[in-house]
Amino acid sequence: MKLTINRTSFLNELSTVQRAISSKTTIPILTGVKIKLTTEGLSLTGSNADISIETFLTKNDTKAQMLIEETGSIVLQARFFGEIIRKLPENTVTLEVLDNKQVAITSGAAEFVVNGLDADNYPQLPVVDEIKQLQLPVRVLNKMINETSFAISQHESRPILTGVHFISSSSRLLAVATDSHRLSQRVIPLEDVQEDFDIVIPGKSLLELSRSFKDEEEIVSISIMENQVLFKTANMYFYSRLLEGKYPDTNRLIPTSFSTEISFNVANLLSAIERASLLSHEGRNNIVKLAVSDNKATIYGNSPEIGNVQEEINYIEMTGDPLEISFNPDYMKSALKAFGGIDIVIKFISPIRPFTLEPTDSEISFIQLITPVRTN
Amino acid sequence: MKLTINRTSFLNELSTVQRAISSKTTIPILTGVKIKLTTEGLSLTGSNADISIETFLTKNDTKAQMLIEETGSIVLQARFFGEIIRKLPENTVTLEVLDNKQVAITSGAAEFVVNGLDADNYPQLPVVDEIKQLQLPVRVLNKMINETSFAISQHESRPILTGVHFISSSSRLLAVATDSHRLSQRVIPLEDVQEDFDIVIPGKSLLELSRSFKDEEEIVSISIMENQVLFKTANMYFYSRLLEGKYPDTNRLIPTSFSTEISFNVANLLSAIERASLLSHEGRNNIVKLAVSDNKATIYGNSPEIGNVQEEINYIEMTGDPLEISFNPDYMKSALKAFGGIDIVIKFISPIRPFTLEPTDSEISFIQLITPVRTN
Repeated sequence: MKLTINRTSFLNELSTVQRAISSKTTIPILTGVKIKLTTEGLSLTGSNADISIETFLTKNDTKAQMLIEETGSIVLQARFFGEIIRKLPENTVTLEVLDNKQVAITSGAAEFVVNGLDADNYPQLPVVDEIKQLQLPVRVLNKMINETSFAISQHESRPILTGVHFISSSSRLLAVATDSHRLSQRVIPLEDVQEDFDIVIPGKSLLELSRSFKDEEEIVSISIMENQVLFKTANMYFYSRLLEGKYPDTNRLIPTSFSTEISFNVANLLSAIERASLLSHEGRNNIVKLAVSDNKATIYGNSPEIGNVQEEINYIEMTGDPLEISFNPDYMKSALKAFGGIDIVIKFISPIRPFTLEPTDSEISFIQLITPVRTN
Repeated sequence: MKLTINRTSFLNELSTVQRAISSKTTIPILTGVKIKLTTEGLSLTGSNADISIETFLTKNDTKAQMLIEETGSIVLQARFFGEIIRKLPENTVTLEVLDNKQVAITSGAAEFVVNGLDADNYPQLPVVDEIKQLQLPVRVLNKMINETSFAISQHESRPILTGVHFISSSSRLLAVATDSHRLSQRVIPLEDVQEDFDIVIPGKSLLELSRSFKDEEEIVSISIMENQVLFKTANMYFYSRLLEGKYPDTNRLIPTSFSTEISFNVANLLSAIERASLLSHEGRNNIVKLAVSDNKATIYGNSPEIGNVQEEINYIEMTGDPLEISFNPDYMKSALKAFGGIDIVIKFISPIRPFTLEPTDSEISFIQLITPVRTN
């Protein structure tokens, strides 16, 4: 294998596949990046127990300015290799496989010779059945991931809750995540009738996926088989394992009748909650109180050691009964951040029943649920 | 005490004194910031075992827009107080001491009430004898600190080496630091004849001092007494304790005759050393080799597991005998960074004797010393 390539283009590809490479793996060859050069171009692969990423750079890419002198493949220790490429003195780099799987990396006067591994020993990536396919703009998928994945469980006691539940049926795609204290569910319409599916994707995989996309305007194809999902763009294959087991029926958790409703601008409410949580974070119980009464909405926070805070907040509209309710401000903050700069309505049943948050714009099917904290 | 003030101006003062406040102190009142309001303006104080910082904001400061309604003083828990001020909704904040040393912090609709401590219980700052005084532009002092303090020892086994040795005599100021493996010494001329002194200032204090200055064009007055030094600018008093004990005689360490001399541009040499150290960092011995022979200077680095690197580097001038010498690249990197983007000459005696680095511009009295690593 012998290749000369623009250093920046190469680094771009390398940093994408490095998302899948961990130095902690017990399988030595997986600490490496697989480099495969064909007459068509360059392909890099990184993999761990959860995800695998394969990128492809065509020989016609004008920025990459590839000079393919000899095809072939090799595996190089990813961390070092990345650091070396980053620090090279010139804009181009030449990689050449020598005897004994050694690789010469040259750029200007700098000549590295590093030890490689036989690419034949690199594990095969899973073969994914492409029958159950769905196509979405990257932008739409990224948004859905951001709107739900924060609500997954961080604990392995119920592994299924560490994933996001995706259901495709009746020309709509639903994504829902819950850690049993709060829930976030987003539904989008699908343009064509698509194959139905029902899968749970690990939250961590989705975050890495979201960071691996380079162009929000691209289309991503999602292909599913029994225990794998493949996200495919023009230049990247991103594989993730699926979580096994039955995801709980979250639909029955979402209440439908309420006694108090109040709407806010998200940014206003968020900054008041952030102030109140400064003190609540110090108390033994991390709780903030919202009191809704005639024409007034007030946020309270306190810490016995430090002091207390109260703040009357502007609301847009208020209907129903007066209410005092306490909640974990961290759940409220992440819920509000997921909505972004819009207006929302919060609907309450009672101080001890979960409350819902939804955009006031009823065109958007996005609902969040937070369980309050009982204070007596 | 009651004060209304621009929030940004107040935060500026607060973040300066917070450099001296540690939450780890065993003296509870020192986790606080002392706030003192007089008819002249606002003074804030923070202190720990090593340094104390006092800032002063005059009532005439136009940006601060102070409204002094009632003078007085209070001590507030610094970490929370800073976070609260940062998150307030409006551009101004009002602080008012209530009964029982509680303090109301209000800004827009947000009303915090936090617990304070009696300012009378805050320790007195040391009284510094102002006889031995020296005046310097902040820029000059900052540069001297950056040029020397990186070479202090990080180990407490010889506490005196954790400081920078400053000597004022014969119209010049000398600063030197060494950890016994490398040394950095900078000398600057002083304009007026100044009082002689010989002190060792903790390296950590100097770094905080350097970060506390806001205006490089200001003049700083340095006043010394037996175990304290005070750095004074128009709006800040910065106190540091001095290290006790005798600093070693470093002058006799600096060699004066050499067998090989070679000069480089610092940036060129630094980037080659950084590449070589990528591999040397992985080996058991973190060493990089420089080989100087007829018309050629080459840097070598290697790691048995990963591979090796060699790079011929451009030099400016070379005289004397051929030489091969090995050294810790980390010492070389910090030495080169302290020089900045200039040309330097490196002078060698033999592969086992310390070598010196100096600017090729002989007007600048700045010398560094690095002990090589014996490889056989």
